Amino acid sequence: MKMFLSDNASGVHPKILEAIKECNTEHELPYGNDIYTKKAIEKFVQVFEKDVDVYFVANGTGANVLGLSCLLRSFESVICADTAHINVHECGALERITGSKILYTPNDNGKISVDDVKKFLHAIGDEHETQPRVISITQATEVGTVYSVEEIKVLSDFAHGNNLFLHVDGARISNAAVYLGVSLKEMITDTGVDMLSFGGTKNGMMFGEAIISFNPEVSKYLKYFRKQGMQLISKMRYISSQFIAYLENDLWRENAEAANSMAKLLETKLKTFPEIKLTVEVQSNIIFAEFPGEWIKTLQDKCYLYITDEETNLVRMVTSFDTSTEDIEEFIDQLKQFSIKY
Amino acid sequence: MKMFLSDNASGVHPKILEAIKECNTEHELPYGNDIYTKKAIEKFVQVFEKDVDVYFVANGTGANVLGLSCLLRSFESVICADTAHINVHECGALERITGSKILYTPNDNGKISVDDVKKFLHAIGDEHETQPRVISITQATEVGTVYSVEEIKVLSDFAHGNNLFLHVDGARISNAAVYLGVSLKEMITDTGVDMLSFGGTKNGMMFGEAIISFNPEVSKYLKYFRKQGMQLISKMRYISSQFIAYLENDLWRENAEAANSMAKLLETKLKTFPEIKLTVEVQSNIIFAEFPGEWIKTLQDKCYLYITDEETNLVRMVTSFDTSTEDIEEFIDQLKQFSIKY
Amino acid sequence: MKMFLSDNASGVHPKILEAIKECNTEHELPYGNDIYTKKAIEKFVQVFEKDVDVYFVANGTGANVLGLSCLLRSFESVICADTAHINVHECGALERITGSKILYTPNDNGKISVDDVKKFLHAIGDEHETQPRVISITQATEVGTVYSVEEIKVLSDFAHGNNLFLHVDGARISNAAVYLGVSLKEMITDTGVDMLSFGGTKNGMMFGEAIISFNPEVSKYLKYFRKQGMQLISKMRYISSQFIAYLENDLWRENAEAANSMAKLLETKLKTFPEIKLTVEVQSNIIFAEFPGEWIKTLQDKCYLYITDEETNLVRMVTSFDTSTEDIEEFIDQLKQFSIKY
Amino acid sequence: MKMFLSDNASGVHPKILEAIKECNTEHELPYGNDIYTKKAIEKFVQVFEKDVDVYFVANGTGANVLGLSCLLRSFESVICADTAHINVHECGALERITGSKILYTPNDNGKISVDDVKKFLHAIGDEHETQPRVISITQATEVGTVYSVEEIKVLSDFAHGNNLFLHVDGARISNAAVYLGVSLKEMITDTGVDMLSFGGTKNGMMFGEAIISFNPEVSKYLKYFRKQGMQLISKMRYISSQFIAYLENDLWRENAEAANSMAKLLETKLKTFPEIKLTVEVQSNIIFAEFPGEWIKTLQDKCYLYITDEETNLVRMVTSFDTSTEDIEEFIDQLKQFSIKY
Repeated sequence: MKMFLSDNASGVHPKILEAIKECNTEHELPYGNDIYTKKAIEKFVQVFEKDVDVYFVANGTGANVLGLSCLLRSFESVICADTAHINVHECGALERITGSKILYTPNDNGKISVDDVKKFLHAIGDEHETQPRVISITQATEVGTVYSVEEIKVLSDFAHGNNLFLHVDGARISNAAVYLGVSLKEMITDTGVDMLSFGGTKNGMMFGEAIISFNPEVSKYLKYFRKQGMQLISKMRYISSQFIAYLENDLWRENAEAANSMAKLLETKLKTFPEIKLTVEVQSNIIFAEFPGEWIKTLQDKCYLYITDEETNLVRMVTSFDTSTEDIEEFIDQLKQFSIKY
Repeated sequence: MKMFLSDNASGVHPKILEAIKECNTEHELPYGNDIYTKKAIEKFVQVFEKDVDVYFVANGTGANVLGLSCLLRSFESVICADTAHINVHECGALERITGSKILYTPNDNGKISVDDVKKFLHAIGDEHETQPRVISITQATEVGTVYSVEEIKVLSDFAHGNNLFLHVDGARISNAAVYLGVSLKEMITDTGVDMLSFGGTKNGMMFGEAIISFNPEVSKYLKYFRKQGMQLISKMRYISSQFIAYLENDLWRENAEAANSMAKLLETKLKTFPEIKLTVEVQSNIIFAEFPGEWIKTLQDKCYLYITDEETNLVRMVTSFDTSTEDIEEFIDQLKQFSIKY
Repeated sequence: MKMFLSDNASGVHPKILEAIKECNTEHELPYGNDIYTKKAIEKFVQVFEKDVDVYFVANGTGANVLGLSCLLRSFESVICADTAHINVHECGALERITGSKILYTPNDNGKISVDDVKKFLHAIGDEHETQPRVISITQATEVGTVYSVEEIKVLSDFAHGNNLFLHVDGARISNAAVYLGVSLKEMITDTGVDMLSFGGTKNGMMFGEAIISFNPEVSKYLKYFRKQGMQLISKMRYISSQFIAYLENDLWRENAEAANSMAKLLETKLKTFPEIKLTVEVQSNIIFAEFPGEWIKTLQDKCYLYITDEETNLVRMVTSFDTSTEDIEEFIDQLKQFSIKY
Repeated sequence: MKMFLSDNASGVHPKILEAIKECNTEHELPYGNDIYTKKAIEKFVQVFEKDVDVYFVANGTGANVLGLSCLLRSFESVICADTAHINVHECGALERITGSKILYTPNDNGKISVDDVKKFLHAIGDEHETQPRVISITQATEVGTVYSVEEIKVLSDFAHGNNLFLHVDGARISNAAVYLGVSLKEMITDTGVDMLSFGGTKNGMMFGEAIISFNPEVSKYLKYFRKQGMQLISKMRYISSQFIAYLENDLWRENAEAANSMAKLLETKLKTFPEIKLTVEVQSNIIFAEFPGEWIKTLQDKCYLYITDEETNLVRMVTSFDTSTEDIEEFIDQLKQFSIKY
């Protein structure tokens, strides 16, 4: 049985591995001057239907921090949900690397709204306070919910009307697009997003993330920030070739559909247990549920469950591109041993 | 013909690629809690014959900066050669990430000596000056020369007698070990090195580098610095499995021997041209030579030569694990077309 | 009439100015090696009845950031109230200078409690999250309330039982001590505070603040952080001599008593206006009150009122060491012109 | 006898102290919104005959670092002499605060030339290397020499022709202007300097330094950098009033003339000793001389001599605005006791 601990626990999709193998032929110019990187960038331009600026980096934290570093001077700040990855799961990387402050606000099902942003805008021009400059949202959010296209547009319009940028942490952007049933272009380009961390590792890739800038002016020094930020991979073709395979023939969509549908299946089955309480509606590949406390320990030994709240026994479960119906069944069978109903 | 531009231009050794493929099976705990990472760390313990602390990171700049960050408070400084990678080829990453100052000194064939270090030690305890805390050397150096075991030992002893640490940037450490004909343990553990960046990418690996700490006390917070420093790769098994294959059956040595011997062959052949002047004795896999100016442009179009000094037409050539005798012959044949001798 | 805008708007107490003049005689060793600095440090040792480590810096932000920098590695974080000066009124200095994260929590009348701190302690040892290391409180708080000695002790004990330090921003520490009717030793030394920013500028001094470390081990590198942090004043005697005068004959207490009593007088008089709503009980020299919106503009032109909430017309008023009964009367007379009651 | 240790050892000129006293009257708006700061800025505009942007800060390190922070992105670097204050006497503040690298070059009598700068410009556009962006010179230099107006102009023109800024550390700018016999406007405005640290503390002021920006575009965010950089003094009038007095009636010039002439006198007298070797021609208020080793210790006990090279017994002596002929005589009399000639 596969784990539901994290989509980072899954391996690499065979097509990705094949692409890596195929690019392993001759010598290539290092540091992104190779033919694969050129091609991968073209793919992104096609996907977003815009002449975006693309930079491949080592991982998601690197993508978030470097993308944001283009948008922030050190005295400027970024507004995000308290649950945002940049706020709680990157060990303070943004603060350390950019020197900027994070202004976090309580979330509503993983999301923030214009009203949440407004309360930080009272001291524009006052040098005693950091100057808000970026709204950062996560799509899909850390609790698996998905901003609608309209919700993104509203935040984007508000941002641009208030001298702010809109940044999207897209570690699970494919899962969001699949849920919304829209193209990446409709969700990101058309809503006016300024900067995007485009993740693939959680959806079948091996490593590497892409920073997509929709405003070449703000990213014109990104190549320097990438190198200085320790995110320039020398043999870059081994990232680029993955992205080519990932974007070609909609592998990103196929993988996300698989993960999302398995999450929905798991949700359906969990709902049949009277002892289990699902706390958020499943929209992508993440399920949150409160389990009876006595179940946890036994399960934990076998499944590496991720407990997000020790007091309420809130468990986070994540499906992957390779989660199978059998994996779900096997997990549910275990639960049945505990339930009064079964 | 393969390029002599850089060992970063080469691809990945088949055994490395095979190892990656083999670890791509089931789900594994992410962030280094997998069985491959455990095994790779054990391999390093065996190789260095010491209970070293090992951290896998994304690339060489990450390894250097994070390794050094364990040894430095922000007001402390690191002494190195002016040619050191941390000084000239990491876009100021060390200064930006650690806040520390680099004290660079003119090099002697890529190396620095105790006398070079001493001149920076005049203001210990004076708060107006940064406090030197680390000597950093590169092995093999940026010009391809190799510190002898004795030279390292002398620097190490001096360091430890003066409240300094000794750091080694080992991007080409395998090439150095092969040249010296010693084990990694003899070169590093026995000389008292405190911190090592262990590189494999330039010698047949795909990506990923290892920070090896010989003093667990100084690296006890490295896991946090790695995450905050944006260097924690989620699916770490794809780095660890490479290192297992690299260290097993001495693949590191085999690859370095191949590269070094090809460099020696190239040196021998270049010496037969009266128009070409070799400027440094070849000890690892790097050759420096001054070419006639008029040769450069024609060659450049075909071979991507790396010109390190435009005025003297000084060219750097680097051989790789996969450089063949035919590659050398082909290059030499091109040169012969220009030479009066041939 | 003097302003109630801020205690920073007041001038310098005559005894402080006299002390500055008196030290302006001969040449003195710069950078704190002078006889005045030595004497001022001794005064602090006497006041706190402990062999404290004392560092004079340029201002309050410098004191807070440098004091905290002794207690924090970059991946560690500081827990404080959302209203804390370090969180909202230092333009992100802490994040930029130390690289550390601030974990802010909603305040209760300017204060935080052990329960507020506890909710940040769920991920100790998890490298994905910053590691909480310091609790920072402000005494008196930004809304003028004062932690009791017992409240400080509880926070201190909790901190030390959980591998945390307790830091106090004492920009208005004298006003707090006067309110509590305790000595500085009883309030700070006896409660186990680890690090204190001791402010005097808001209470009659000209410039300069003191970092007081109760744990010489943590501050052993502070002299370097101070210089690197741009806070070392060359002619330091002009700060030290102020502190000597300030601590001698309890000038700090005399000034704070004056300010506090004027605040209480102002509170009493404001309470007679039915249109005005006092929102916090006055404990030190700060008064918060909601004014009728139509009053504000007229008053603003004459008194430079500091509006802290535009929607509720919440006004902050601060008394100083030199606020007089006449100043209060004059202000109240202005208000009477608006009130239905008068 | 006054010390020759440093011009920081001197006290404050009576007119400066008087100005401080005179501004100590009523309440004033804090943080630079007072009438004195407005007037002081106007004085600077008059002195430089240009609509300069002026920011008062706490000290010289603050002025250098914050002024440079306007000109530098973190991946950009500043070129200066190895002896530059920012390079060796600010404990690495620039690197820590801005993240930028310092490219230092051997000096020629404290100065650098266009040729020194050129050797750092070989890798423009290459992301592996920091991008030089600023030339920083010290006027007068750390060894007391003075760039001619023409020398500054040549560096300025070269800078602006190569996408670089010219920064001047003017800790002793008054002494330089006096030596050259030119106005501050002729030396700085007319030569095209972009950013200046204007120092007064070493020339009779108490504390506080001014950042003068000749390009409002680059300094438009300086007020935020100043606050975040811990350099915003709340009761700013006590700095501004000093500068008003300093600039009025040419007190800056008067003081510098006094110091320079005393340095020249001291030089003349030292030259009469056959045992003493003056190493640099005295141009401002600094004298460097090699003393017999056996003289040093005895002198040291009485005069706090600053030994800059222990091997050659090189001593730095600095005169101040308040150095008197008697001070010189007294010092010379002491030397005579050692000399064979007297």
